[in-house]
Amino acid sequence: MNRTSLLTTIHSPDDLRNLSLLQLERLACEMREVLCNLVSCRSAHFASNLGVVELCLALHQTFDFRHDRLIWDTGHQIYPHKLITGRYPQFDTIRTKGGLMGYPNPAESEFDLFMTGHAGSSVSTALGLASGDDLLRCAENRWSVAVVGDGAFPSGIVFEALNNVGRSSKKFLIVLNDNKMSICPRVGGVADYLDRLRMNRMYSGLKEEVVRVLSKVPLLGDPVERFLAQIKEAAKAGLHGGMLFEDLGLHYFGPIDGHNIGLMRKYLRTIRNIEGPVLLHVVTEKGHGFAPAAEDPVLFHAPPQFERRADTVVQMKKSPSRAFTQSASATIFQLMTENPHVTVLTAAMCQGNNLERVRDTFPDRFFDTGICESHAVAFAAGQAKAGLRPIVDIYSTFLQRSFDQVFQEVALQDLPVTFMLDRSGLAGPDGPTHHGVFDLSYLRMFPNMVLMAPADEHDLVAMLDFAVRFAGPCAIRYPKAAVPTFDFQRSPLEFARSEIISWGEDGMILCCGALLAECLQAVDILKNKGLQFGVVNARFVKPLDRETILRTARECPCVVTVEEGTLVGGFGAAVLELVADAGMSAANIRRLGIPDRFIEHGERHELLADLGLDAAGIAASCQAWATNLGAPEAPSTKKKVSTG
Amino acid sequence: MNRTSLLTTIHSPDDLRNLSLLQLERLACEMREVLCNLVSCRSAHFASNLGVVELCLALHQTFDFRHDRLIWDTGHQIYPHKLITGRYPQFDTIRTKGGLMGYPNPAESEFDLFMTGHAGSSVSTALGLASGDDLLRCAENRWSVAVVGDGAFPSGIVFEALNNVGRSSKKFLIVLNDNKMSICPRVGGVADYLDRLRMNRMYSGLKEEVVRVLSKVPLLGDPVERFLAQIKEAAKAGLHGGMLFEDLGLHYFGPIDGHNIGLMRKYLRTIRNIEGPVLLHVVTEKGHGFAPAAEDPVLFHAPPQFERRADTVVQMKKSPSRAFTQSASATIFQLMTENPHVTVLTAAMCQGNNLERVRDTFPDRFFDTGICESHAVAFAAGQAKAGLRPIVDIYSTFLQRSFDQVFQEVALQDLPVTFMLDRSGLAGPDGPTHHGVFDLSYLRMFPNMVLMAPADEHDLVAMLDFAVRFAGPCAIRYPKAAVPTFDFQRSPLEFARSEIISWGEDGMILCCGALLAECLQAVDILKNKGLQFGVVNARFVKPLDRETILRTARECPCVVTVEEGTLVGGFGAAVLELVADAGMSAANIRRLGIPDRFIEHGERHELLADLGLDAAGIAASCQAWATNLGAPEAPSTKKKVSTG
Repeated sequence: MNRTSLLTTIHSPDDLRNLSLLQLERLACEMREVLCNLVSCRSAHFASNLGVVELCLALHQTFDFRHDRLIWDTGHQIYPHKLITGRYPQFDTIRTKGGLMGYPNPAESEFDLFMTGHAGSSVSTALGLASGDDLLRCAENRWSVAVVGDGAFPSGIVFEALNNVGRSSKKFLIVLNDNKMSICPRVGGVADYLDRLRMNRMYSGLKEEVVRVLSKVPLLGDPVERFLAQIKEAAKAGLHGGMLFEDLGLHYFGPIDGHNIGLMRKYLRTIRNIEGPVLLHVVTEKGHGFAPAAEDPVLFHAPPQFERRADTVVQMKKSPSRAFTQSASATIFQLMTENPHVTVLTAAMCQGNNLERVRDTFPDRFFDTGICESHAVAFAAGQAKAGLRPIVDIYSTFLQRSFDQVFQEVALQDLPVTFMLDRSGLAGPDGPTHHGVFDLSYLRMFPNMVLMAPADEHDLVAMLDFAVRFAGPCAIRYPKAAVPTFDFQRSPLEFARSEIISWGEDGMILCCGALLAECLQAVDILKNKGLQFGVVNARFVKPLDRETILRTARECPCVVTVEEGTLVGGFGAAVLELVADAGMSAANIRRLGIPDRFIEHGERHELLADLGLDAAGIAASCQAWATNLGAPEAPSTKKKVSTG
Repeated sequence: MNRTSLLTTIHSPDDLRNLSLLQLERLACEMREVLCNLVSCRSAHFASNLGVVELCLALHQTFDFRHDRLIWDTGHQIYPHKLITGRYPQFDTIRTKGGLMGYPNPAESEFDLFMTGHAGSSVSTALGLASGDDLLRCAENRWSVAVVGDGAFPSGIVFEALNNVGRSSKKFLIVLNDNKMSICPRVGGVADYLDRLRMNRMYSGLKEEVVRVLSKVPLLGDPVERFLAQIKEAAKAGLHGGMLFEDLGLHYFGPIDGHNIGLMRKYLRTIRNIEGPVLLHVVTEKGHGFAPAAEDPVLFHAPPQFERRADTVVQMKKSPSRAFTQSASATIFQLMTENPHVTVLTAAMCQGNNLERVRDTFPDRFFDTGICESHAVAFAAGQAKAGLRPIVDIYSTFLQRSFDQVFQEVALQDLPVTFMLDRSGLAGPDGPTHHGVFDLSYLRMFPNMVLMAPADEHDLVAMLDFAVRFAGPCAIRYPKAAVPTFDFQRSPLEFARSEIISWGEDGMILCCGALLAECLQAVDILKNKGLQFGVVNARFVKPLDRETILRTARECPCVVTVEEGTLVGGFGAAVLELVADAGMSAANIRRLGIPDRFIEHGERHELLADLGLDAAGIAASCQAWATNLGAPEAPSTKKKVSTG
């Protein structure tokens, strides 16, 4: 019998309807097998997907998500959902360019409602869907369901949504998928609370009995009555788990075993027949069904490709090259060794930011806030005000959650907080929610902010060293990529100064950050074509190296800015502003970068090539412009007015 | 006796130390009198300040905030604090240009730690201060205190901070100032919960007795033991208010009367002697001590100047001119009348956005989320996905809290959500936290976003009408200002098209939004000086009117962009990008707008004049540039490396 013989018959969730419990359990095994096979070939989100197989089946068998609404929060645990919503045949393309996304994608399936990737917004969007269905009079028996992990649950937006849940449709369900983990072991008050709820499971059995006994307490017509009534209510309340959620207006059910399909079905069917809003607390095991992943869910959150033998022995394929992330964490470690005022903050990305050694060596000065980016930045501002030198180590795309805190708590106060923006630019197979293409534009606009982009480890070390001594906010952005090595003599980092690597008769490339290696290759290509281009390593995006940039604009027939960020308001735009404000022509300046559209998923080098940001593409653009062959691009202006 | 004879003796909180309770109460009366007199002269935050007079005195008498840390969340209730921290002599300058700020300002006093204005970040920054003091070994008996209103409490960042409170210093106090109000009557689950806590005050008296009785229940060594122990714990828990906070790891005290200085002092002194973190729930009355304000705290949140007679009779001075806010709400009302799919959302700004009539007429389609901007935008995205046409009516500066939701939930999904950004540009006396100067730059960078700026009511009505029929996200930004009236023939709104009002031989002004009236006056001034300037009403910031802008760049000796927004990456930068990408010189283009620094508080017209953005300033710049007299500005690059 084929190892996926049942799964091949599931073309849509409709095909689950008549499966028996035994068949569902077999299907779960088949789905796990597919997940394990996938991760043997390619890095992907893994442990979290193994954890929700049964939950996914129970949900799809109880609800009809053509009619009902389902949002998987964050979306990295969407794989089982994809397997049973018609995408099993394409499943081996997941996270490859042109293939399935590793996150929900409405373009792939009607069962994916929102393209997501950032944590915590599912409750709000599901509430919005419920509200819309309600107002459009199509809410008849139509449920909205949000599945939120305990890691995402402390995100501020979840609390804001919970605060607004009361007014929603009565058919509203939040499934709290409690696997005792964020990406890293989770932290904080909510985590402790969930731990206590799970411990309280012993209460469940006793609960009915207590309620029965207490019902017999007579209610007398004097002060004693109130006293007893209060004890009764208090006891009922205390015996009922989930008071925190009940206090916010939700009916709480659970905790229940999230790997028991039959039990979950029973609960879900019960819930369907009551009036919401409901929170169902489901306990799952991250990595369930594959022992190595269950034992080390941090390592197996999104593991590199690994070898699997007999379902137990594994060997990870490690990347041979050193990445910017490693350089950054090693530098942070070094600075913390030298300077006791330096602290480091992460928002649940201890592993992703390679901070385990920092955490273990400097536990007092390491702060993991959980997925609470807004808090992390405001907290860092408080630390800086008190005299510390906090480093906020965060993915570029996730710092967007702290936009307002970067503005008010840091830039407005001119406090010395250092932002290390990992995964800037094109983040690769995670796709548009994870690309960090806006940071140059959105950080540049804040007064007091110093913004840097290192080309290599030399720059990165110098910039971080500079930042923790500077008297105001600094941001350093770098991609998820191997650190290049350069063989030319490096000049030391100076504030607001770029590094002139070479000077070209025919043109100059002003390179912002880690694309320097591509630019240097492009110069070689151009040389072979008879064109002499020079390269400037910009280093500072704000403040710009005014002198050098104006010199290139004045002296060079062709100046090309290169950045791994949006062209809208980014580094190239800053160069144009500088040149125009100086009263000079910008007619010889051209910009290369990310165009004004969302960029799909794919390997970074593939995407760079597509966008003309690899060496060949940069050389081709430079050649075209330098030889005046380049026709001006015509930015498209879409026109799409509906008559609704 | 002088009506402020005691207050004049308070030069710092030190002078409170030896005041008796009676003297403190008299001081409170004097402070109220000062607040009432102030608001008779000038619009200012009022009811909230009347509400915290006693709390302020009790805090400053119990703690020493030279050593301890105090953050007033949001900061609009800072007036009593300013009165007793040495700023009474300058108090009549508050909210005037060059005078005291209406919010905390570290430049004014060592007792103001953060310049704030956006709600909810106090708990995070206070935690950061506590953490810093702890690590720097100066935390000995040093408390950090955050005072948060119940309106700000549901902000996501407060929850994120609560989730992280456990690790903080033991000397940490949150005062929850519960006045049953946000700016408007507050909404949501937390509000309902606080209502129940207040109702529960009857429990307090019984609590001790119950605990005493329950202590006598014997604990036997069999299943009955567990049963009884559980009842005991449950009863204790249920009788204890504030479980929601206790569940998150805080000690809960209260609710107590926030106008009883003696009682608050007693509680605060007790709290000083225990280990935190502690939440003290204080109930205050917004507008306390001035009957009209207590009766209508919404009207008196930040009332216009009013006449006061015998402490009761008041007459508000109404502005004679119609403001953009009124035009916007009237248009929203009209669209909701015509189109049942249109909904409107506000984040606690029903009054500020003039939406009372909308709320009362269309209660089903009006949504006040409380101060939960992130949720509001994600919720709107859900509504749009379900088929509605939501309008998010929000202050420009507060939409910064939703930056990531505008990105992920709206722009990435290309959903038809309309953003109405009130208070864009220079918001006036509220100052730098409230100026909406970044929106053009930060909204322009998102793919799919259409961004418009109306010059007057004609534009605003047409833009909103366009937006609710457009198949993607739209944003419309306008200032807190009177709507101008123009006497020239208006051309109808067309997608991505500007309005050419006049064409000038000597130069063209490209005006973005509501400064059009100033630009037209500037043209008259220039005419008197013999210079023929024309004016374009840009209307669309994204997509730009490519044809018209390139024509001005090609044909005009001098093109001046004018915007009430930061010059970094804004409208003028967009024009430069367009012109440069078309391969044309931008040497004839100059930009006017907000420079790269935070702008102080003051009346909008005063600030515009200071920045050269009134008619005279625009004319002067145009004249200088058109006659080649303008020297290029030299942007300063600060250099400030500390040796720490």
